[in-house]
Amino acid sequence: MAGKLKNGWKGRDVISSLDFTRESFELLFSASKEFADGDRARSDLLRGKVVATAFFEPSTRTRLSFSSAAAKLGASVIDLSTEVSSLAKGESFSDTLAMLDSYSDIIVLRHPSEGAALYASEICRHPVVNAGDGSQHHPTQAMLDLFTVLRLKGRVDGLNYLFVGDLRYSRTVSSLLFALTRYKPGRVTLTSPPALGLKPETKSILERYGMSVREEQDIERSVGSADVIYVTRLQKERIPDQAEYQKLKGSYRLTEGLLEATKADCIVMHPLPRTDELPTSLDASPKAAYMKQAGLGVPVRMALLSLILGVA
Amino acid sequence: MAGKLKNGWKGRDVISSLDFTRESFELLFSASKEFADGDRARSDLLRGKVVATAFFEPSTRTRLSFSSAAAKLGASVIDLSTEVSSLAKGESFSDTLAMLDSYSDIIVLRHPSEGAALYASEICRHPVVNAGDGSQHHPTQAMLDLFTVLRLKGRVDGLNYLFVGDLRYSRTVSSLLFALTRYKPGRVTLTSPPALGLKPETKSILERYGMSVREEQDIERSVGSADVIYVTRLQKERIPDQAEYQKLKGSYRLTEGLLEATKADCIVMHPLPRTDELPTSLDASPKAAYMKQAGLGVPVRMALLSLILGVA
Amino acid sequence: MAGKLKNGWKGRDVISSLDFTRESFELLFSASKEFADGDRARSDLLRGKVVATAFFEPSTRTRLSFSSAAAKLGASVIDLSTEVSSLAKGESFSDTLAMLDSYSDIIVLRHPSEGAALYASEICRHPVVNAGDGSQHHPTQAMLDLFTVLRLKGRVDGLNYLFVGDLRYSRTVSSLLFALTRYKPGRVTLTSPPALGLKPETKSILERYGMSVREEQDIERSVGSADVIYVTRLQKERIPDQAEYQKLKGSYRLTEGLLEATKADCIVMHPLPRTDELPTSLDASPKAAYMKQAGLGVPVRMALLSLILGVA
Repeated sequence: MAGKLKNGWKGRDVISSLDFTRESFELLFSASKEFADGDRARSDLLRGKVVATAFFEPSTRTRLSFSSAAAKLGASVIDLSTEVSSLAKGESFSDTLAMLDSYSDIIVLRHPSEGAALYASEICRHPVVNAGDGSQHHPTQAMLDLFTVLRLKGRVDGLNYLFVGDLRYSRTVSSLLFALTRYKPGRVTLTSPPALGLKPETKSILERYGMSVREEQDIERSVGSADVIYVTRLQKERIPDQAEYQKLKGSYRLTEGLLEATKADCIVMHPLPRTDELPTSLDASPKAAYMKQAGLGVPVRMALLSLILGVA
Repeated sequence: MAGKLKNGWKGRDVISSLDFTRESFELLFSASKEFADGDRARSDLLRGKVVATAFFEPSTRTRLSFSSAAAKLGASVIDLSTEVSSLAKGESFSDTLAMLDSYSDIIVLRHPSEGAALYASEICRHPVVNAGDGSQHHPTQAMLDLFTVLRLKGRVDGLNYLFVGDLRYSRTVSSLLFALTRYKPGRVTLTSPPALGLKPETKSILERYGMSVREEQDIERSVGSADVIYVTRLQKERIPDQAEYQKLKGSYRLTEGLLEATKADCIVMHPLPRTDELPTSLDASPKAAYMKQAGLGVPVRMALLSLILGVA
Repeated sequence: MAGKLKNGWKGRDVISSLDFTRESFELLFSASKEFADGDRARSDLLRGKVVATAFFEPSTRTRLSFSSAAAKLGASVIDLSTEVSSLAKGESFSDTLAMLDSYSDIIVLRHPSEGAALYASEICRHPVVNAGDGSQHHPTQAMLDLFTVLRLKGRVDGLNYLFVGDLRYSRTVSSLLFALTRYKPGRVTLTSPPALGLKPETKSILERYGMSVREEQDIERSVGSADVIYVTRLQKERIPDQAEYQKLKGSYRLTEGLLEATKADCIVMHPLPRTDELPTSLDASPKAAYMKQAGLGVPVRMALLSLILGVA
């Protein structure tokens, strides 16, 4: 029912990409488009609302893009992050959540532990938005990634996606793959060092939703057919052998040569921050979409906050 | 005079509970009720006003509840706290206060030193709100505590109050006792380890205002007649002998058994954060009032800011 | 042309005092006066706008005065500063700037490196305001300093200026001297320890603009004819020999005796924070202008933000 769909976001927790239907995504992207295009008066939409940001892991980008989105809608942000060190020696996680819940209208949470956001949503009366927990879920990143594809390629369906880099520990990759199960992508290819391939549990979730992925270690073979290349950084701290790290790093760099081998209208995405896997020499290429992608985090999070708080 | 009473808060410093009359408290609670009940349009009341928070001691709860209160009224917060470390090696306290005074409309100060808020109020042209200084004064906590009693019990007068825990160093306890001298409480009982009883100077202030308190070390004897039980945590760092600490801690825990021995309509309060003295197994009890109490910090601080800044 | 002048600030970067004409300054001061006098409704001027503060060096005073100015205009602030430590181990400066640029409408930057603000202005689409970089430029401080002179002395032209203290590393001194080249000051005198005199490159810039300065080591000889005395603190960390530091410090203290030797309507300015060179015993003197000066940072920065964002 239209009525039901329209209210589909109101009061809702955002824990995993898997919790959302294609219709939910489309509703979100429709609102995101209005904000991205500057089509609506907006600075009063959330006036008087309080957004709590609680980052138990640092994340400049995600925290500031939520803060910016809140600000552009007239909401205020209260931020727990600077206090985290004192929390470490003190209060329980659940008491901290109860406090935030009584001070704010929505809680944006980042946490190193798998399941922290789900647990928080069970404690809090107000909606909880997972801004990344554990190594699988970062749903709002997946949403802005899909919106970037939609905006730059005109559609999500039927495109060939290539994921490059650390696919094992990157929650942006698994979250985007989960979101893609709601669409009809073309070929989905994974290119990573063998030790950093997609986790079996992530693969089995994709299988359950009928999404097939192809693994191809040779990046020179995989770049040619991609419409969307999604690169993530190798996480040095997780690879025990530094010599191995150095070797892997070089082999998975998206060089200018590789970029030349891609389709003319291919786009390159990256959740940022980047290290060596994405050289700045690519930035001037019309294929480089990662800076636009970063910027689209703000309108997507504006849409998300507005929809959940029931004003969009 | 009505006119005088109505303006009784405007431009006022809040240094100690002892500075306020019963009429002042009642005016505050009347405004707090409107905010707690959501009876008034509010997000524009303090638009363009700047609240400075200056926390020379960390306090997640108090700082964020003031920030939330300011935000809900449309005010902005500038926060010194993250700079405290650089202040440590630099500027004098009075120059720092003069700076905040010229940048904001009201200064919310927490400081480890006794008398810091009074000193600040003498330096600053704008009102200063003591958010806790030294070991005696935390007047806005006392205000939200009284408002919690009023809201849950319907009155402050005539009730039996039992204070349990570290009564020596807890400024929330002395501040609430000072505020109670403006009312006509029933029996006021203090239960604490002998080393952590109320300070003689606090007792003599209470005597001066004609308030009698009874000390009773045995918690099993004191819980039965209480209408309001106010628990505070034992502050481990102040008890030199750790074996002694462990022993005391256990003996002053508000167990489920003790809770059963209380009156049916007794309420349990705690300024939070808590440690072992208040087990989470009590949270589901209808007697557990501490989470509601924490939430009421926001409307009481909304009322306080509005009244002082002259818009309520 | 009036039209051109009126729009002279819109969308503009603020990198150095040298980038501005006298007309630009006068336009700024005219708007500053309106804010300082409270002549205009203001809390909606920048509603929905986002000001990013990015302080790669701590500065309580400058950061909070920009935050206060933004708040009073209804803008929101997103602050990178607390994240700087995590940036240290991560992202490139240019990627960080690109992020801020996509999240905000204007970027206020402080950085230890010479030229950082200019570099940032080349990366960012949105205006960049230099809140201090390297040892030469801090243009918004120069603007508030000039506005203070104008407000307290009625004019900038024709007055005798005396600069006292560490003139070598103080970017507030060089920025104010650069700004004064747009006016017709009377005698400009520099009094400092020999090792801390104005840098040759700063002198040659002044010469290029036809401004002559006189160096006079003996403060007792230089104070008598000054209309404006601008004191800066000696920066202990830059003087290798501590015995030398102690000696210099005492000799350049603006004592009460020296203040008595000044003209009756002389004003004493200081960018603050201060150390021993400016004793608090002077604060009560009508000649002491530094607290007023600090307070005027807010209306000048309100004017600056409004003009650049095109609403003043």
